[in-house]
Amino acid sequence: MASSSQIDLSGTTYCVLTGASQGIGRAIAAQVSKMLGPNSVMLLLARNKEQLSQTASLCESKNVKVFYESIDLSKASLLEMNFALNKSLEGRRVTDFSTSLIFHNVGSLGNLAVDTARMQDVPELREYYDLNVFNVIALNTQFLKLFEEVEDRVVIVNITSLCAIKPMSGMAYYCSGKAAREMYFKVLAEEKKHIRVLNYSPGPVETSMIDYVLAETVNKNLRDVFNSFKNQGTLLKPEMTARKCVKVLLNSKFSPGEHVDYFDDE
Amino acid sequence: MASSSQIDLSGTTYCVLTGASQGIGRAIAAQVSKMLGPNSVMLLLARNKEQLSQTASLCESKNVKVFYESIDLSKASLLEMNFALNKSLEGRRVTDFSTSLIFHNVGSLGNLAVDTARMQDVPELREYYDLNVFNVIALNTQFLKLFEEVEDRVVIVNITSLCAIKPMSGMAYYCSGKAAREMYFKVLAEEKKHIRVLNYSPGPVETSMIDYVLAETVNKNLRDVFNSFKNQGTLLKPEMTARKCVKVLLNSKFSPGEHVDYFDDE
Repeated sequence: MASSSQIDLSGTTYCVLTGASQGIGRAIAAQVSKMLGPNSVMLLLARNKEQLSQTASLCESKNVKVFYESIDLSKASLLEMNFALNKSLEGRRVTDFSTSLIFHNVGSLGNLAVDTARMQDVPELREYYDLNVFNVIALNTQFLKLFEEVEDRVVIVNITSLCAIKPMSGMAYYCSGKAAREMYFKVLAEEKKHIRVLNYSPGPVETSMIDYVLAETVNKNLRDVFNSFKNQGTLLKPEMTARKCVKVLLNSKFSPGEHVDYFDDE
Repeated sequence: MASSSQIDLSGTTYCVLTGASQGIGRAIAAQVSKMLGPNSVMLLLARNKEQLSQTASLCESKNVKVFYESIDLSKASLLEMNFALNKSLEGRRVTDFSTSLIFHNVGSLGNLAVDTARMQDVPELREYYDLNVFNVIALNTQFLKLFEEVEDRVVIVNITSLCAIKPMSGMAYYCSGKAAREMYFKVLAEEKKHIRVLNYSPGPVETSMIDYVLAETVNKNLRDVFNSFKNQGTLLKPEMTARKCVKVLLNSKFSPGEHVDYFDDE
């Protein structure tokens, strides 16, 4: 599959998705699973095994065998990542799949209780970046190494945010982490033009993150923005943004590493 | 000094600059020192004490008392940062200064010997971000805390790069780190509109970094770009970009957190 060609999920597809236990991750997993052809495999990763099993039950079908693995991506070793990937292959060869897809959806908001002008906890910053940037890179590399032989069939989707390109008050951890993560994928896309890389920004979605922000933030502006999202009913359902994400993929019009937002024209 | 007002360095000014031992840092220090009014203070930080002393000798004048401190900003504790800042104040009150200025110029290129698609060394990523992002944030916070009483006189300059907003092959560490760092300063500027925050991108400058890239990179495209910079003589002298940086500051037309490049119109 060359950079200019159409992405086709209707063949035998291998798909990994992180942060699959809830919200946008669960919705994308469910949406993608409907597209996959016979003998496809999905590997769902997150911490919460119980919730993962619920996502898995939404994805299983005659075409799709679903694996799920409880893994803490803030701490996971390369060994654990590779173990999960290899287990889900069950000895099948990577050439058996016509498309190899990975969704980097895992993410957290960071410490919302500290003013940006008072951030100074370096170990906390490291932990935040471990989950949101460094281990995303590490997992992506394990995936690329595994599918090296069929690199031109690889499709990478990074779930990014408007916050990666537009500063938002009270969200310094989130904005800076998303900026770093998106830029890594853009550099990768610049180097590997035959790999399809999409930075998809899902828009403001009705997930538990919204309530977490309202509970935790010390920033009045951020609280006002999120309250108005809630009160005006402008939040998207996870299913809406999941559908758009898959549509953008299948339309295949994005340039290497392009940041595509839910609200962008198709 | 409100956000819309002119930045004036001709009064009694306090100025910190990191990465002051060479290259762009040294040139900015020298350029800024000429602008400062009577009883001003400069604090130059970097690892190499011998080279710092050379920069200091370029900056000392009847108006400017220069302090320099050998400090490894990849590892420095908050205590060490505060010690250096307080020592240079010599018991003077922060209200004695009409402007308090900090240049975050410290930076490194990261591991250029690994393909972006093979990055997986999380401890190495942490170390890179410690120096280039996390401790920049930590030092900036110590500075803001020290000058809290006169926060509206604070001016912050982050030395960024075109790489913060444009992916460059073979520079995933650098691009992602610069993106994260610039975004932190943009969020800060968004929250603190009365603090002047500038993200200044110096352009391609003739420093030791150029030869380091040529010696280390495994990326052919990057090598070609840097070779053509060298061979075509298009690299800027550090003094040229230092002059432009100071000009942008004194013109004071930049919006909060704006990314201003050497090649941008004035």
